[in-house]
Amino acid sequence: MPKPNPRHPNFPIPGGLELRAKGWRQEALLRLLENVLSVGEDPENLIVYAALGKAARNWAAHDAIVRTLKSMDEDQTLIIQSGKPVGLLKTHDKAPLVIMANCNIVGQWAKAEYFYELQEKGLICWGGLTAGAWQYIGSQGVIQGTYEIFMRIAEKRFGGSLEGRFILTAGLGGMGGAQPLAGRMAGAAILVVDIDPERVAKRKAIGFLDAVAPDLDTALQMIDAAVSEKRAVSIGLVGNAADIYPQIVKRGTVPDIVSDQTSAHDLVYGYVPKGMSLEEVRRLRTEGQGQLMAASRASIADHVRAMLTLQEKGAEVFDNGNLIRTQAREGGVANAFDIPIFTEAYLRPLFARAIGPFRWMALSGEESDIARIDDLVLELFPDNHIVTNWIRLARENIPFEGLPARIAWLGHGERTQLALGVNELVAKGELAGPVAFSRDHLDAGAMAHPNIMTENMKDGSDAIADWPLINAMTMCSSMADLVVIHSGGGGYAGYMTSAGVTIVADGTAAAAERIAHAITNDTSLGIIRYADAGYDEAIEAAEEHGVPHIKLDAS
Amino acid sequence: MPKPNPRHPNFPIPGGLELRAKGWRQEALLRLLENVLSVGEDPENLIVYAALGKAARNWAAHDAIVRTLKSMDEDQTLIIQSGKPVGLLKTHDKAPLVIMANCNIVGQWAKAEYFYELQEKGLICWGGLTAGAWQYIGSQGVIQGTYEIFMRIAEKRFGGSLEGRFILTAGLGGMGGAQPLAGRMAGAAILVVDIDPERVAKRKAIGFLDAVAPDLDTALQMIDAAVSEKRAVSIGLVGNAADIYPQIVKRGTVPDIVSDQTSAHDLVYGYVPKGMSLEEVRRLRTEGQGQLMAASRASIADHVRAMLTLQEKGAEVFDNGNLIRTQAREGGVANAFDIPIFTEAYLRPLFARAIGPFRWMALSGEESDIARIDDLVLELFPDNHIVTNWIRLARENIPFEGLPARIAWLGHGERTQLALGVNELVAKGELAGPVAFSRDHLDAGAMAHPNIMTENMKDGSDAIADWPLINAMTMCSSMADLVVIHSGGGGYAGYMTSAGVTIVADGTAAAAERIAHAITNDTSLGIIRYADAGYDEAIEAAEEHGVPHIKLDAS
Ligand SMILES: NC(=O)c1ccc[n+]([C@@H]2O[C@H](COP(=O)([O-])OP(=O)(O)OC[C@H]3O[C@@H](n4cnc5c(N)ncnc54)[C@H](O)[C@@H]3O)[C@@H](O)[C@H]2O)c1
Ligand SMILES: NC(=O)c1ccc[n+]([C@@H]2O[C@H](COP(=O)([O-])OP(=O)(O)OC[C@H]3O[C@@H](n4cnc5c(N)ncnc54)[C@H](O)[C@@H]3O)[C@@H](O)[C@H]2O)c1
Repeated sequence: MPKPNPRHPNFPIPGGLELRAKGWRQEALLRLLENVLSVGEDPENLIVYAALGKAARNWAAHDAIVRTLKSMDEDQTLIIQSGKPVGLLKTHDKAPLVIMANCNIVGQWAKAEYFYELQEKGLICWGGLTAGAWQYIGSQGVIQGTYEIFMRIAEKRFGGSLEGRFILTAGLGGMGGAQPLAGRMAGAAILVVDIDPERVAKRKAIGFLDAVAPDLDTALQMIDAAVSEKRAVSIGLVGNAADIYPQIVKRGTVPDIVSDQTSAHDLVYGYVPKGMSLEEVRRLRTEGQGQLMAASRASIADHVRAMLTLQEKGAEVFDNGNLIRTQAREGGVANAFDIPIFTEAYLRPLFARAIGPFRWMALSGEESDIARIDDLVLELFPDNHIVTNWIRLARENIPFEGLPARIAWLGHGERTQLALGVNELVAKGELAGPVAFSRDHLDAGAMAHPNIMTENMKDGSDAIADWPLINAMTMCSSMADLVVIHSGGGGYAGYMTSAGVTIVADGTAAAAERIAHAITNDTSLGIIRYADAGYDEAIEAAEEHGVPHIKLDAS
Repeated sequence: MPKPNPRHPNFPIPGGLELRAKGWRQEALLRLLENVLSVGEDPENLIVYAALGKAARNWAAHDAIVRTLKSMDEDQTLIIQSGKPVGLLKTHDKAPLVIMANCNIVGQWAKAEYFYELQEKGLICWGGLTAGAWQYIGSQGVIQGTYEIFMRIAEKRFGGSLEGRFILTAGLGGMGGAQPLAGRMAGAAILVVDIDPERVAKRKAIGFLDAVAPDLDTALQMIDAAVSEKRAVSIGLVGNAADIYPQIVKRGTVPDIVSDQTSAHDLVYGYVPKGMSLEEVRRLRTEGQGQLMAASRASIADHVRAMLTLQEKGAEVFDNGNLIRTQAREGGVANAFDIPIFTEAYLRPLFARAIGPFRWMALSGEESDIARIDDLVLELFPDNHIVTNWIRLARENIPFEGLPARIAWLGHGERTQLALGVNELVAKGELAGPVAFSRDHLDAGAMAHPNIMTENMKDGSDAIADWPLINAMTMCSSMADLVVIHSGGGGYAGYMTSAGVTIVADGTAAAAERIAHAITNDTSLGIIRYADAGYDEAIEAAEEHGVPHIKLDAS
């Protein structure tokens, strides 16, 4: 039975054991679609997160998807083009149930302005990284991502701990809202600036933010106190980051860590330029896109100049994947890329071993299923410090949203082992229902994004998009249940291509076969991509695990 | 047994019944790779056609591919990234044997200059539309393409016949070299200009060109004579099109049809600017790329201005898919797009019904296999005028190159029916060996190319690249043997994305299943793509054939 959803009463949280489709595979995908709406930012408009990231093109498209998932057979494949179902083909029982391509635009046309045009014509919609693929699990995914970044910085610069350290960042939206909780979980004192009082209030209300400061002075005093007591705390402040960051510079305060997660990637629907009210910005979104883009770019330039100054003064400053450096460079900040990207700076050695954000969702809706799987993870991987630490922290700190779910940074072999173990638990009746597995698109072999994921690759292959396409084609050939190729929309248009995959563990032998093929090939490709680029970690991992990487004879 | 190849003695033409791989599927793909080299322009450098279109990244990559095809099992998949094999994954027996992604670059980076950089680093190679996918069958494919364009023009403007009509065009390279033969087969008097005397001599030597004129005066006299006698003839002329076209304008001569197939898409490795010798151009290719690009663009501007003048004076002028208008527009010819593209002008009603260039290759190497299949086509489709006419003409006029092959514009249902029929002939021993089926990437649902294939789509979806990606993912899910996603290289970088597929008919029941799934889904997607864009022909075809197109409720 679905559960009521206080946040969005029209979008109940799926659950229970009643099938509305012809099998659990189809039912699972239907529930995942329902789930991304139930945890989404603005489900009435099909928006899941990141300003424009949608679960389906429009309501007619959504309804046709739901109808088809309910009626289709296991040897059919539903084809979805940018959120709109276009065909239901006869395939076979080892083929995916759903194939999607979202927001892919031919290179020379892949620009924000053109994307908006196509969107207005109703011809395209952006799927974000997990909205259009029905894989979003609420804030948890990005909480761990941000937490792991903080912990890698702790290891690199602060003796393994962020106790008594000050983190400054901005943005309390769908993703950025995870920052205060991640910072507190990492033991730091974190200050997060957002221009929108409603967003700030919301993060406080759902327990992601400890306190809201009335002004910058008070905020810095609260931070100072926490730092000297080595007390973890998260403080919110209403303000424009392009004002606040320079003010902090002026006061001579230097935080230990500085980042930003405003929607800087989108100069129209995301970023709010300084000196403008939210109302003014909302009006310009329809009436003055050009003016708004110019103002946003200028404001981001100031914002990033302040970040660069703090970097010079010794802060650990990084770009957290919102294209802020790219926008700043276009706004005239020639050295914006002196700020490193988080992937290259902290996470690449993990990705090179195909360790990345893997996740699972309890389709029954029962939280106890996740608890049981948490135990299994701790049993299976007692020596994996990152994962055991995270599972313990997450259990204590992270409220479930929508379908109960968990994320954990697992690698090649581990992911397959866990998913097979879960499938067995389903078979033995130790879980209330089937479980769906997916991973972030930002995963080893699955994303080309030269300003985020693949910046400064060792061999210079940053912009080569063959890899995510190979990943998606391989997943279609490896019994995955849902496969998707996404490219960027809005300000991300032309900046990325990525692939996503979902696999359903319903306790059958067929599911075990699917898991063994799809998950193993997915992480194999991750290792192969980095081995091909010359990363030692990947070359070693390939040997260690017998990954079938082809090496050429020296020519 | 392989056959000797007088043109390239080191690259014998594959054939015979001896298997070097573990099964016919693998052997077939190996032979197709060998074949594109045996018919290629410069096989020593792995170049098949179109200046830079390669069969593999380099020789070490080629050798590893060959080794792997020979040793791999039927439930494995070889992964190829831009011509380089990177992994051999365990999949299953309904998965493709080979998956490729070639030359795909993230949008904002997809520009000619960046492509050349990546190419120089050895990180990428362009596969053309059929070189990298091992699907090229020599000139025949493009001969029919050009012939069908001429015949559609004949129907539209000249009462169904080109007798007594004058066609002016340029380019006698790997593809363009088909023009004189296509023009003669269509009954016209055709003059083809090329700057390279060797190319001109070669087309004459292999029987594609009737005669070479020593100068423009003589050329025009020869054309005049043929026109007045309504005699079909093809004349070559050594010269720069950017000189010759304006001279023809000056003389007041107005051909009936005007086009061009120089390598205008590539300002460095393709087009030769007027006023420059071939030697000079070859030197600048390494030493002065910038200068060469500017000179090419200026020259193309003159070339296209002459075409526009001839259009004003009443000639039927069209762009034959070499990006010449795009280059001219960048060179300052604002109205270059007054010249229509051949797809929109002549072929779209065919593509909307998924009628496009389908082809088959006799893996035995026996020409009699093609003859037997020609008969089958005539038996199966007696009322299909385009196809029966073409098969009769091709039998008379087209010499085989490499593996004996045939191309024919067949549509949804027809392709599946023919391939199943051929598979039966193989099973019954009526053919000497198995047959491989493929199609051009320039096919209904398989290409996004806003300046060629998808220009001026009814709904404005020209630049949406979801469709070729969907096609490739669907082919991976429909038992195809080889699946590939290509994007443009050189001057085509950022201008296109396309998908290719190969299916092997080895006479087994499994092959029949592969054919039924892969070919039917391929053409279904073609119809769906055009139906979704609002083309009546496609909407009718979908209904007529029961294609599973999903229509949304009016919202
Ligand atoms: N690690 C990654 O790669 C990763 C993961 C998720 C999201 N992101 C990126 O992070 C960014 C934020 O994502 P989101 O889902 O939270 O977006 P969102 O649109 O939901 O929220 C953005 C927030 O920024 C605030 N804001 C805008 N301009 C501001 C300014 N000048 N000063 C202060 N606050 C401002 C807005 O009020 C809003 O609350 C996006 O660019 C997204 O794509 C990156
Ligand atoms: N219908 C289609 O969409 C389609 C199909 C195949 C090829 N093409 C395009 O057609 C073009 C030709 O392909 P190709 O394989 O023959 O290329 P190619 O490089 O083999 O041959 C190009 C020829 O043009 C000649 N040339 C270059 N500049 C010239 C000039 N200024 N004047 C006269 N001759 C000149 C060269 O000497 C050469 O013989 C390419 O742009 C190719 O991509 C389009």
